[in-house]
Amino acid sequence: MTILLYDLVGHDVGRPFSPHCWKIKMALAHKGLTATKVPTRFLEVPKVEGGVSKTVPVIRDGERVVADSFAIALYLDEAYPDRPTLFAGEGGKAMARFIERWSQLTIHPYIATVALADLHGMQDETNGRYFREDRERRYGKRLEEVVAGRDAGLAGFRASLQPLRSMLTYQPFIGGEAPLFADYIVFGALQWGRIASPFQLLDDGDSIVSWFERCLDLHGGIGRQVAAAA
Amino acid sequence: MTILLYDLVGHDVGRPFSPHCWKIKMALAHKGLTATKVPTRFLEVPKVEGGVSKTVPVIRDGERVVADSFAIALYLDEAYPDRPTLFAGEGGKAMARFIERWSQLTIHPYIATVALADLHGMQDETNGRYFREDRERRYGKRLEEVVAGRDAGLAGFRASLQPLRSMLTYQPFIGGEAPLFADYIVFGALQWGRIASPFQLLDDGDSIVSWFERCLDLHGGIGRQVAAAA
Repeated sequence: MTILLYDLVGHDVGRPFSPHCWKIKMALAHKGLTATKVPTRFLEVPKVEGGVSKTVPVIRDGERVVADSFAIALYLDEAYPDRPTLFAGEGGKAMARFIERWSQLTIHPYIATVALADLHGMQDETNGRYFREDRERRYGKRLEEVVAGRDAGLAGFRASLQPLRSMLTYQPFIGGEAPLFADYIVFGALQWGRIASPFQLLDDGDSIVSWFERCLDLHGGIGRQVAAAA
Repeated sequence: MTILLYDLVGHDVGRPFSPHCWKIKMALAHKGLTATKVPTRFLEVPKVEGGVSKTVPVIRDGERVVADSFAIALYLDEAYPDRPTLFAGEGGKAMARFIERWSQLTIHPYIATVALADLHGMQDETNGRYFREDRERRYGKRLEEVVAGRDAGLAGFRASLQPLRSMLTYQPFIGGEAPLFADYIVFGALQWGRIASPFQLLDDGDSIVSWFERCLDLHGGIGRQVAAAA
């Protein structure tokens, strides 16, 4: 039985953009599992699987429904122990949580700032209206005003990634010699930026760009199946 | 045969302060290994074990000499596989490197700023002269000028620890339900601050303080054997 993955999309179902859904697409590929993607727009999320979650990704694997990207990764590793591991041990599970929190608090806020208006432009009319109202309430200002801060924040954003850059002088992936779910956590964030916005987040010579390109090459290059925003 | 640990001290050998040596004291205790500590002053470091390293910790275990705290932890886990693991798998080893880089780049610079003059005051005359000259050359200013920036940096420092704080809403240790070397990495940094300076790094109600207290309780409370600076 194939796994169903509810995957966030805008008006173009060929450009799924959610960082958290990308984590799971990479995780499924890592484990050699195929999934049927169910294109899901923002306003459809509350109806997914009877309203199991306020966010996607959600997967259905037979009778089992799992929401939340980290929980899904843990589930996949437990349900398919004979396939390549996403965590490589209990220590990897625990520390991937730290990396998730770091990524969420260090990378996500800036990419949201960069891409907010672009993300709005990717939605159809109804979902775009929802997205604008929801995000403008959260930020307390217009989307265009949020995005106006992106140039001023760029140097600080790049500096904040120094722990990742420094780690890459020791090993090619966060997971060590080969990628693990922790890589997909950070990859998902940068892939969100790549697909949503042409804004250049990183210097061309940055070692993080090299690592991100290595991630785009993984699993038959599934990350490259969606072109970068132009 | 007992392990030798070269442990950085100032004029009071009862107040070893090095964050990296504390990582290894915790790691040795975690593995139930006893070590003879060799009190080592800054100017003695280049002579340790024939000049094997510019820094301590260095350990000698029989014929084997290992320098660098992360390398020592890896060595201990490989040499004593039947004792409690410090990494809990290959994923834990790889991701502990990320956490080490994060700690080194996020926590260490600020604690150095806070404690630089206090650390100078902990040295004997000869080592104090070396410490002042070396650090003033590195910073390009007097120790007292470096320390003068600590109040202005405090809010930013506390905010920069948000990934750790957020992770602690999921699990009690970086290692998950129980501590691993990754905990000792961050513990070592805060223990360095605790022993060197009375400056209050964190709010009393901070969940990181609770985690740090849990670490001080570990392994018979070895972290508490040195009183906080007053």
